[in-house]
Amino acid sequence: MKLYHEVRGCSLAVDIVARELGIPLDLQWVNMRTKTLADGTDYFSVSSKGTVPTLELPDGQYLSEGTVIMQYLADEEGSGRLLPRPGSLARLRVLEWMSFIAADLHKGGFMPLFKPATPPEYRRIATDYVKAKLAWLDSRLRDGPYLTGDDFTIADAHCYTIAMWAGVHHIDTDAWPHLEAYLERVGSRPSVKAAEQAAREQGERDRLTSNALVG
Amino acid sequence: MKLYHEVRGCSLAVDIVARELGIPLDLQWVNMRTKTLADGTDYFSVSSKGTVPTLELPDGQYLSEGTVIMQYLADEEGSGRLLPRPGSLARLRVLEWMSFIAADLHKGGFMPLFKPATPPEYRRIATDYVKAKLAWLDSRLRDGPYLTGDDFTIADAHCYTIAMWAGVHHIDTDAWPHLEAYLERVGSRPSVKAAEQAAREQGERDRLTSNALVG
Ligand SMILES: N[C@@H](CCC(=O)N[C@@H](CS)C(=O)NCC(=O)O)C(=O)O
Ligand SMILES: N[C@@H](CCC(=O)N[C@@H](CS)C(=O)NCC(=O)O)C(=O)O
Repeated sequence: MKLYHEVRGCSLAVDIVARELGIPLDLQWVNMRTKTLADGTDYFSVSSKGTVPTLELPDGQYLSEGTVIMQYLADEEGSGRLLPRPGSLARLRVLEWMSFIAADLHKGGFMPLFKPATPPEYRRIATDYVKAKLAWLDSRLRDGPYLTGDDFTIADAHCYTIAMWAGVHHIDTDAWPHLEAYLERVGSRPSVKAAEQAAREQGERDRLTSNALVG
Repeated sequence: MKLYHEVRGCSLAVDIVARELGIPLDLQWVNMRTKTLADGTDYFSVSSKGTVPTLELPDGQYLSEGTVIMQYLADEEGSGRLLPRPGSLARLRVLEWMSFIAADLHKGGFMPLFKPATPPEYRRIATDYVKAKLAWLDSRLRDGPYLTGDDFTIADAHCYTIAMWAGVHHIDTDAWPHLEAYLERVGSRPSVKAAEQAAREQGERDRLTSNALVG
């Protein structure tokens, strides 16, 4: 299956999940500045929304939204390891995290910081919002090694991907030791290292062809 | 089950869904300015995030995130009417809409417009963002009466709730006839009228006690 991906995009979480599950994905890098693929194809022909991630399903249909793609992949693999089975409260707890991360943390918090046109006044508001959410996240990470307890789930791949943007925007995480330990714990997983490495390598290629990065 | 709800909040979508499903909910109105319940209880004792909606499950646990609460209710009812069963692509299509509405439209688009401190410069950026998303939504509503086709789903309750905020923020929907017809179609459902009426009545009571509304 093809994953439409971006060098510093939230699509990293999907790549991490696929590697954890052992599902091979064919990474298709999108130039988000020009909204084109490497061969010049208009990305809007893949995603009418123009956002990553998008997954091409085996039948050729496209599936969008990171939270939904990650659910799909985990359920396809079928062991319930990264996402408990439908009908369980444990599954709802994972999905609760995914919704919070996609909505509040990513779109409500970090998105404005990625927009060059965001004025300093709102940049401060968004930074304070992110900080409040990360402080809350830190408090919730006191108990378990992972968001929902002892096991790494798709919510951790997602949370790690978005929370790491704190560094991109010079938000110091020193005040949140549980969060820092968590990011280190997740970041040391082979799946995460491999996904980050793939993005870094593409970033190097992009620098040579001067592609911009959009968050 | 208790639903922690707010007069103009996104929790309306949950109330609509419950009424569609015939699941009775005990509405608990939250004063979002003071983060207290009617009897003075600190709302943070219910939701450490401090956001609505929250649902109290039959066993007393709390479930947050509108998208997840709506899934839970639809699956509890069990007919698959408002949300196709797990394992189907049709379900993923509904969830795809829910993720987009919660993340991009609500938190990315409308949230900054509800914050009094948002400066005019960013208010323009957020308004343009909302308009782009609503224009895209309009284009997607060309084919079916509802978001995923012929049947009303939890995604429609959600979409209606958030898209109706265009009116609150004086965003003219004239340019999007499919969206306008859709909002009228959804808005004419008895469940929607009843949920809106309940919120309006609480709004009247709040005016007498001067509770503020937060989006
Ligand atoms: N709700 C979507 C958001 C996707 C999203 O915003 N992706 C970013 C990259 S991190 C993007 O494509 N931004 C470019 C744009 O919005 O034009 C999801 O979680 O998949
Ligand atoms: N991602 C959450 C967002 C919930 C949310 O932001 N609710 C708003 C009301 S529409 C709220 O509680 N705002 C108050 C706050 O953030 O302090 C969901 O979809 O349930």
